[in-house]
Amino acid sequence: MDKIEVGILGATGTVGQRFIQLLENHPWFEAKWLAASDRSAGKRYREATAWQLEGRPPADAAERIVEECIPGKGPRLVFSSMSGSLAGEIERDFAAAGHVVVSNSSHYRMAADVPLLVPEINPGHLGLLTAQRRERGWEGAIVTNPNCAAVVLVMPLAALKPFGLKRVMVTTFQAVSGAGYPGVPSLDILGNVIPYIGGDEERKVESEPQKILGDLEGDHIQPLPFTVSANCNRVPTIDGHLVTASVELEQKASREELLAALAAFSGVPQERGLPSAPKQPIHLMEAPDRPQTRKDAGIERGMGTAVGRFRECNVLHWKFAALSHNVLRGAAGAAVLNAELMKSEGLIEG
Amino acid sequence: MDKIEVGILGATGTVGQRFIQLLENHPWFEAKWLAASDRSAGKRYREATAWQLEGRPPADAAERIVEECIPGKGPRLVFSSMSGSLAGEIERDFAAAGHVVVSNSSHYRMAADVPLLVPEINPGHLGLLTAQRRERGWEGAIVTNPNCAAVVLVMPLAALKPFGLKRVMVTTFQAVSGAGYPGVPSLDILGNVIPYIGGDEERKVESEPQKILGDLEGDHIQPLPFTVSANCNRVPTIDGHLVTASVELEQKASREELLAALAAFSGVPQERGLPSAPKQPIHLMEAPDRPQTRKDAGIERGMGTAVGRFRECNVLHWKFAALSHNVLRGAAGAAVLNAELMKSEGLIEG
Amino acid sequence: MDKIEVGILGATGTVGQRFIQLLENHPWFEAKWLAASDRSAGKRYREATAWQLEGRPPADAAERIVEECIPGKGPRLVFSSMSGSLAGEIERDFAAAGHVVVSNSSHYRMAADVPLLVPEINPGHLGLLTAQRRERGWEGAIVTNPNCAAVVLVMPLAALKPFGLKRVMVTTFQAVSGAGYPGVPSLDILGNVIPYIGGDEERKVESEPQKILGDLEGDHIQPLPFTVSANCNRVPTIDGHLVTASVELEQKASREELLAALAAFSGVPQERGLPSAPKQPIHLMEAPDRPQTRKDAGIERGMGTAVGRFRECNVLHWKFAALSHNVLRGAAGAAVLNAELMKSEGLIEG
Amino acid sequence: MDKIEVGILGATGTVGQRFIQLLENHPWFEAKWLAASDRSAGKRYREATAWQLEGRPPADAAERIVEECIPGKGPRLVFSSMSGSLAGEIERDFAAAGHVVVSNSSHYRMAADVPLLVPEINPGHLGLLTAQRRERGWEGAIVTNPNCAAVVLVMPLAALKPFGLKRVMVTTFQAVSGAGYPGVPSLDILGNVIPYIGGDEERKVESEPQKILGDLEGDHIQPLPFTVSANCNRVPTIDGHLVTASVELEQKASREELLAALAAFSGVPQERGLPSAPKQPIHLMEAPDRPQTRKDAGIERGMGTAVGRFRECNVLHWKFAALSHNVLRGAAGAAVLNAELMKSEGLIEG
Repeated sequence: MDKIEVGILGATGTVGQRFIQLLENHPWFEAKWLAASDRSAGKRYREATAWQLEGRPPADAAERIVEECIPGKGPRLVFSSMSGSLAGEIERDFAAAGHVVVSNSSHYRMAADVPLLVPEINPGHLGLLTAQRRERGWEGAIVTNPNCAAVVLVMPLAALKPFGLKRVMVTTFQAVSGAGYPGVPSLDILGNVIPYIGGDEERKVESEPQKILGDLEGDHIQPLPFTVSANCNRVPTIDGHLVTASVELEQKASREELLAALAAFSGVPQERGLPSAPKQPIHLMEAPDRPQTRKDAGIERGMGTAVGRFRECNVLHWKFAALSHNVLRGAAGAAVLNAELMKSEGLIEG
Repeated sequence: MDKIEVGILGATGTVGQRFIQLLENHPWFEAKWLAASDRSAGKRYREATAWQLEGRPPADAAERIVEECIPGKGPRLVFSSMSGSLAGEIERDFAAAGHVVVSNSSHYRMAADVPLLVPEINPGHLGLLTAQRRERGWEGAIVTNPNCAAVVLVMPLAALKPFGLKRVMVTTFQAVSGAGYPGVPSLDILGNVIPYIGGDEERKVESEPQKILGDLEGDHIQPLPFTVSANCNRVPTIDGHLVTASVELEQKASREELLAALAAFSGVPQERGLPSAPKQPIHLMEAPDRPQTRKDAGIERGMGTAVGRFRECNVLHWKFAALSHNVLRGAAGAAVLNAELMKSEGLIEG
Repeated sequence: MDKIEVGILGATGTVGQRFIQLLENHPWFEAKWLAASDRSAGKRYREATAWQLEGRPPADAAERIVEECIPGKGPRLVFSSMSGSLAGEIERDFAAAGHVVVSNSSHYRMAADVPLLVPEINPGHLGLLTAQRRERGWEGAIVTNPNCAAVVLVMPLAALKPFGLKRVMVTTFQAVSGAGYPGVPSLDILGNVIPYIGGDEERKVESEPQKILGDLEGDHIQPLPFTVSANCNRVPTIDGHLVTASVELEQKASREELLAALAAFSGVPQERGLPSAPKQPIHLMEAPDRPQTRKDAGIERGMGTAVGRFRECNVLHWKFAALSHNVLRGAAGAAVLNAELMKSEGLIEG
Repeated sequence: MDKIEVGILGATGTVGQRFIQLLENHPWFEAKWLAASDRSAGKRYREATAWQLEGRPPADAAERIVEECIPGKGPRLVFSSMSGSLAGEIERDFAAAGHVVVSNSSHYRMAADVPLLVPEINPGHLGLLTAQRRERGWEGAIVTNPNCAAVVLVMPLAALKPFGLKRVMVTTFQAVSGAGYPGVPSLDILGNVIPYIGGDEERKVESEPQKILGDLEGDHIQPLPFTVSANCNRVPTIDGHLVTASVELEQKASREELLAALAAFSGVPQERGLPSAPKQPIHLMEAPDRPQTRKDAGIERGMGTAVGRFRECNVLHWKFAALSHNVLRGAAGAAVLNAELMKSEGLIEG
């Protein structure tokens, strides 16, 4: 099978670098077109980017000339990690020009006709695309993945959904890579905790889960009615967002039943064996002091979610710690998995 | 006025070093007797300790010979930072031998006849000492200060107590100095978060506040009936425990009323101008991203509590971030302030 | 005595903040005029700056309106921490307009008629000002202090100068505050070492010492003829530049003689008791593992230099580790001490 | 081909964990026998070790019962990462009992009849084993690999050896994993640099290179006569020892010639394609700010050495930065490569 050519919008940023890393040996996709801001366009990729990952950019990407973000140019499938302020216009123009935009940007996540996709949870939300194309008159499409802190929470919540979600309190410990590059100044975070993350982070964590866990009803998503309160914090870690969370459930359940539900949680990506899918979406950690950011964020090549310390809560019903890799499960890997789901649905042709 | 001679039990540890630092130029107390484990006894202090603080030990302490922990030896007033497992027996023997033991250890905190003292909040709990001496037959006494994470929470809770405390959720970001020395291995915490703290830390944070905020009724403390749920976590910071907390109150109140109560909170240490008392126990931070561990833990020479991000909570009523210095307000400084309170009450003679 | 009013050019940066902190309770100087880039001018200082230091800006400075950098405005004495690219023109214009510019910028350090001043070492270099004023036609003047890594090295070298300096190898471990704010991105330095510092750092460390240790001969400085080779590196520390150095000397000397020379080193600031002068410029650390950046950079309120591990070198003659605080002894504190020296010489009137 | 069964002495430590990780899918070797101190013996491996690496121990090792270190038990080939104080006796007893001990311990490195092996540099030193067996009367043998900081230096020195090594100055930036577990307390290294490493680290770096680069002459190694001076320092990084070094050479050579020699350096492991061998032992980094510890220590799966910033030195002739992974190229990986070399020489039978 020939690989499908894909493009990357925002290829020089932190998430863009991960797209290139993930696509280097991808069985289905091949990164052939790297686009970025005007400042970078025309340079070789290795000159245009401050490579943050281990070693050097893959040889193929390193020598490629960075392109301008011009709709209609480049392959039909484009991954986007444009920053929020630019994404609205550019992604719209690409979709209008016929591109399938698999986006990690926040701009369209909460739009009524745009899937906010987690393939293990809501693959059916791709059904929104019919309405999206009809109403917007696009030949292409936009699909999105969740905020990198929201996704850590939503994975165990999906497993607990059968028990009835009512209220959730979550406090995050977010890594610096979540802020991109140059991102967080070292003077602000070395030996420090910042109890605040800009860009309305808490609002995203408090509102995305309801849409993700909601049901497709005709042309729209009916959000799951439950409440989230979030405290978002930056800590001096490189990769991996850890959260502590408490949940209130409608149904009584034993600790064993809930742990079993977490361990058994699985979905379409696992059934179909999508290339980037974790074998097991949720890994329960037995040790009392796990998951830990540095040691466990890489679980299942960064696509798994580690859950530990599941125990009773004095205020709500249950509490636990959860962790996933913010740039893989929470950004570039999430988008690649979304594209793999779409390909497996016949929405992207080879 | 001649200074009151004091002793230190556990003088070579992390908290013991802070006792020495705080007492170096103290107007009332003078550290004349430094005791530690048998391993250290007989050595000069500078040889027996791995000094963690800036520069070198004060010259006076540096050359002092470390003593054995023998009850009856040393001054009447002793500060104790013995580790939990040893504290029970040693502190009891010292109290029985007539010493006033102002302890930072956890062993006696929840004992019915031992004050768990925060001078701004419950100076009247010193009234327990009558019963303590009578029932235990001690000439001396034991008073304690709270766990270093509990005290961060209890200070704003004390200010909010008039509004009726019902339920509290708290997640901590605790510095490595809280674990003493050698304490947390660097391989465990560099670029990492550990969502667990041993020694039953969460139980302490969930149970000490009710006693601290309780009322002295005759011979015992009636705990304030409210519920706390805690998630305790270790982060790569040096000094300062930060918490995010949500509270449910009995009474409706506006944000302004609550902020005013926090800012106005004050007590006996401020009235009497005790030497180690912060001028203002709680400092409200206006900047949206404060308090921050490294930048704000030193507020009021480490004896203040910084509170910020006070806002509505979707699940309980209000949420905020709070911070104090775990080795000062949360350990050595707390004990020194306790001793100052006792002196100002005539319970320690010069 | 009325305090002398002073201004600060670049008041909102990392070094500017330290100027404000150091001048808050200075016995001779009072910061009355805070100037910064056009972007900041017109705002209140607390709004214009991202305060990096503990707590909040001093109340007096916090409410002051930031001024534009207009020569002729503001007090006669101005401290400058303009970034290198701007400093050349602005400092010249201020000096021409009659200001005494005490600069931390690198621009004029190596100019033949500008003192590169370390008051303990070369106070006589102020004699250059006569030629400076005559040749440049300035009513004011410019004096500079060394690069923040060069000064760590030059202090022990000054003490060893009587033994004849021939060749010096130095490797630096520089803190992130040396790069200002936002400075080094956290993604670049958390858990990392960068064996390179931009802005020609190594050239500065290799060329400034010879001028600093040189002699004033008539109208110019005759550099001390010796060679330095530098490796400059960034490490994840907040404040304090540590160096390891090896030196080759012309004269044979015992370890004891050299240590005695280091310990005895002293100069005009100590004789005159200048307010910011360390009591003892060089502190010898006896412990085999000191000086350490975090624990020792604050020695003598950040104005001392700690030297340890003095021992024989297999390749050159002697080797040692040295440390000073890069923002105090290496920047703002150095400039304040320079101004104090000038005042004590009658070069700045009250 | 059946895999060769191997044992690990010290399997629960930091290096022991890496042996298990490296042998998990090794094509030639299989870890069948895990031995450790009496304290661990009898427990399952997952209970006996505090696993520091990503995720969890391999399933096979996790359930294995840890054995006592009894000579004669276990497979003929054993890897040893016993701590220095125990290694002398235990490794000797194992060799006497017929085991081939491939050791990472320092105890026998400088023994006249023990190879201090770097397969790219001195594979012929295995010729010492004849004398070793004859003189010691062992059926087995001991071979060692260098100190984890020495190996970073010795790899580029080997490439430069044809130009005549005279004098070398080296300053190290060593990661905390080099000290094992629990190793360096976090209070000692967070935001800090310690200019000292215990266990006579500097002496090892100053004396091992001469033996490694020496020639086998009959029954002994004639050390290469050149001088090294070392400054060893601990920095807050996880894995990877970076060094800055200056070298004096006997022959004049251009920068291009020397770079070509570094890039072309290769040896027996590359010729024979040994499984753990890097394809290219030395990688030249073009970027002016590389190699960097966190980003480059993993080069060639942690078995490569990254060299950058090769430039003239004012004091000696040339200077550069070099980096390798201290637990892989500097410990467990080095030992595994040594065993592979021995197998390829027919010294270990399948």
